[in-house]
Amino acid sequence: MQTQTPNWQRAIPQFQAILGKSAVITAPEDLVVYECDGLASYRQRPTVVVFPTTTEQVAAVVQVCDQLNLPFVARGSGTGLSGGALPTENSVLIVTSRMNQILEIDLVNQRIVVQPGVINAWVTQAVRGEGFYYAPDPSSQIICSIGGNVAENSGGVHCLKYGVTTNHVLGLKLVLPNGAIVEVGGKLPESPGYDLSGIFVGSEGTLGIATEITLRILKAPEVIEVLLADFTAIAAAGATVSDIIAAGIIPAGMEIMDNLSINAVEDVVATQCYPRDADAVLLIEIDGSAIEVATLSQRVKDLCQQNGARSITTASTEAERLKLWKGRKAAFAAAGRLSPNYFVQDGVIPRSQLPYVLDEIATLSQKYGYTIANVFHAGDGNLHPLILYDESIPGSLARVEELGGEILKLCVRVGGSISGEHGIGSDKKCFMPEMFTAADLETMQWVRQVFNPKQLANPGKIFPTPRTCAEAAHSHHWLQDGVEVF
Amino acid sequence: MQTQTPNWQRAIPQFQAILGKSAVITAPEDLVVYECDGLASYRQRPTVVVFPTTTEQVAAVVQVCDQLNLPFVARGSGTGLSGGALPTENSVLIVTSRMNQILEIDLVNQRIVVQPGVINAWVTQAVRGEGFYYAPDPSSQIICSIGGNVAENSGGVHCLKYGVTTNHVLGLKLVLPNGAIVEVGGKLPESPGYDLSGIFVGSEGTLGIATEITLRILKAPEVIEVLLADFTAIAAAGATVSDIIAAGIIPAGMEIMDNLSINAVEDVVATQCYPRDADAVLLIEIDGSAIEVATLSQRVKDLCQQNGARSITTASTEAERLKLWKGRKAAFAAAGRLSPNYFVQDGVIPRSQLPYVLDEIATLSQKYGYTIANVFHAGDGNLHPLILYDESIPGSLARVEELGGEILKLCVRVGGSISGEHGIGSDKKCFMPEMFTAADLETMQWVRQVFNPKQLANPGKIFPTPRTCAEAAHSHHWLQDGVEVF
Repeated sequence: MQTQTPNWQRAIPQFQAILGKSAVITAPEDLVVYECDGLASYRQRPTVVVFPTTTEQVAAVVQVCDQLNLPFVARGSGTGLSGGALPTENSVLIVTSRMNQILEIDLVNQRIVVQPGVINAWVTQAVRGEGFYYAPDPSSQIICSIGGNVAENSGGVHCLKYGVTTNHVLGLKLVLPNGAIVEVGGKLPESPGYDLSGIFVGSEGTLGIATEITLRILKAPEVIEVLLADFTAIAAAGATVSDIIAAGIIPAGMEIMDNLSINAVEDVVATQCYPRDADAVLLIEIDGSAIEVATLSQRVKDLCQQNGARSITTASTEAERLKLWKGRKAAFAAAGRLSPNYFVQDGVIPRSQLPYVLDEIATLSQKYGYTIANVFHAGDGNLHPLILYDESIPGSLARVEELGGEILKLCVRVGGSISGEHGIGSDKKCFMPEMFTAADLETMQWVRQVFNPKQLANPGKIFPTPRTCAEAAHSHHWLQDGVEVF
Repeated sequence: MQTQTPNWQRAIPQFQAILGKSAVITAPEDLVVYECDGLASYRQRPTVVVFPTTTEQVAAVVQVCDQLNLPFVARGSGTGLSGGALPTENSVLIVTSRMNQILEIDLVNQRIVVQPGVINAWVTQAVRGEGFYYAPDPSSQIICSIGGNVAENSGGVHCLKYGVTTNHVLGLKLVLPNGAIVEVGGKLPESPGYDLSGIFVGSEGTLGIATEITLRILKAPEVIEVLLADFTAIAAAGATVSDIIAAGIIPAGMEIMDNLSINAVEDVVATQCYPRDADAVLLIEIDGSAIEVATLSQRVKDLCQQNGARSITTASTEAERLKLWKGRKAAFAAAGRLSPNYFVQDGVIPRSQLPYVLDEIATLSQKYGYTIANVFHAGDGNLHPLILYDESIPGSLARVEELGGEILKLCVRVGGSISGEHGIGSDKKCFMPEMFTAADLETMQWVRQVFNPKQLANPGKIFPTPRTCAEAAHSHHWLQDGVEVF
């Protein structure tokens, strides 16, 4: 049973006047869909969900929120993995899924302007026929939205060579938390003045809502080749990655999956390409001109063999490539078959620390008594350990979260980061002090404070309040509802 | 004759206590050196110049400034071209030239940590022996400092393929305007939380002073080749650039020089490579693996010939390459021989607008009666028109500045920018409203306000106060001293 404050009662007819009645949802049975994002261990039902279609509508909605002091949270497709789009108490959820228009395509200058609800994969689809593509490719690219990618500064397999979302956003039209419409960046790679476009990308909705996004598109490579090498020791796969980079070769992507992940995907999607007895497989995508790919491919194969690869499979046609990638793309889903629940972590380490960190993760796995499958963007040092557990055993999620936290602290200790591409959101904010001093965090909060002085835009995200995870454990809403990690 | 406020008298012994007497300059004859940067049409003598060597010394100096409300301006080598390091009235000039240590080299993870006074070229020198280099290469790279590059987000010839300074800065240790020491970014390509590192790069000293800079270094390419193609029509050179990009080829750099520039450099440095009767030369640098360079080079040559190139010279050895680049590198200096004075502009246009904009610049040249030599980073659409004039003719600088302004407005009109790599500084702040709305500019100023609430850090830069150039003409200090544009 939901009670509304007088301000809610005043807001709803205003939202209906701005958007039309069909674009404002308040019935509890409809709201339940929006109570979490991809990280379902946190849940909070919003009070109202609105579906604007234009920048002006977003601005009008935000102005109402500002006037009535209502917190608001932006949400794209809701596939985020750090609780960035988790509603907060009594919040207005502004869903951008109906803002799904591609507004402009400029092939000569290699840019495209989209609304935030446009799905990542649609961008490439819109320009593929002309020989272009959009580089950042989260695993969820067929469902996640560009707006969400901007909020979380999403990565993907190809970010090794091409960089994450921020490297591909040229400009943004924004609605600020006070309801003002501004433009930051532009249509060129660099703009004078402060790089506000850069600071908005990855700000997880705490500084405003992007309503038009100008993206850089790239000329599609002439040739793409995927190599799958299998190793009897995962350390050898890691050493191969280091050797490839040290040779001055930057593949489009380099991914490692361990034995547990290999068997999980073979059980589920039966690629029949990943040897079940391998300790690890290394997937390497090389792109460029035909002659370049041929040359680099040979050098990469040599390096794989020097590191003891048992076999190397090569795929050049799109069908063959998709077959090799199929297992990697299905890895998270397949992990769901290994145990009733799993918890995915997202940490980054310097590449040189890979063997040490894998050993330490194995030690932590034994210490806590949970199996961990390892799937990672090896070229970037971006780890995705999947901790397998059974939620029905009392206390298990708390232990798994503690183990996940230990892995993050390990990443920081070796000079890495607590997030590679999933963002901080609700989930990791208590780990921010592991990476940043109080002064560093305060400096970031200055920016939040000046853009979002009433803390209405996505409150309670990114920054730790209370300060530490131990304190947080006593106050937050974890495990509030029926809990399922994915 | 210089008078000091009581606050000055109080500050100087404090600076001497922090830095030692030899690191504090107050004698007028010593201060004169520091009254302008590379843009000498603005001059203002600082009241005191200090030379810290450590982060802690910078912080202590800034704390004194904060306590005594003294404006302070950071300066590296003083080669900036927009008046970013121009002292303001009664300011403390904090010169970083003695902060010239390379603090850490980590080849495995491809990064280097330097103090801000380290010269750009030293970075590559420090790692060249191990096969690495630092990509951003302003023309002034043998003298300009990394701190200045960070402040102005400097570019260079190789930024077409590799991006400008911001793409190569991983993290910064900063002294904020309140004297606090914070770290932003880190040692990895991406950090969680707000991208404060990104917002500091290009903030021209208005948000604080970088005292340690972590840069990304790249593996040196196996092979570098430079092509020089000459054309009887500059439009054909421009079309060749567009065709190369459209073919999906991204050379390391593409530069065009027009007939006037060609003859100027041949007069001065006698490369004997640039045909004096050519309407334009196009310099193209291609790097990569041997086979890749060989393949791309042939395709680029074909495209040059299809666009009517009269001749194509190829250089593969370092000596040959340097010979072809010699004229381009000497272009600005050589322009100084064409007339008593010249004024260099820095605007950006979408590549597709190149032929139109060159025609319009020719029209403006005729209308104003000043010859304009054109040298530009053609691949990026970054123009450097050199307006030739004689300062001894009364009123000429004002007319030339008006003409330069018309060129900037033209750049904005076709969807471009008022600065490609020189920054806004003092020089172009009155053009900011051409690119940004009042709301856009106000949003940027929020950031300045929160980091720099007393406006002590490099006051009066970037943002237009008064708002328009016409208003500014009645209030600023242009033409204050003996004026020489370079």
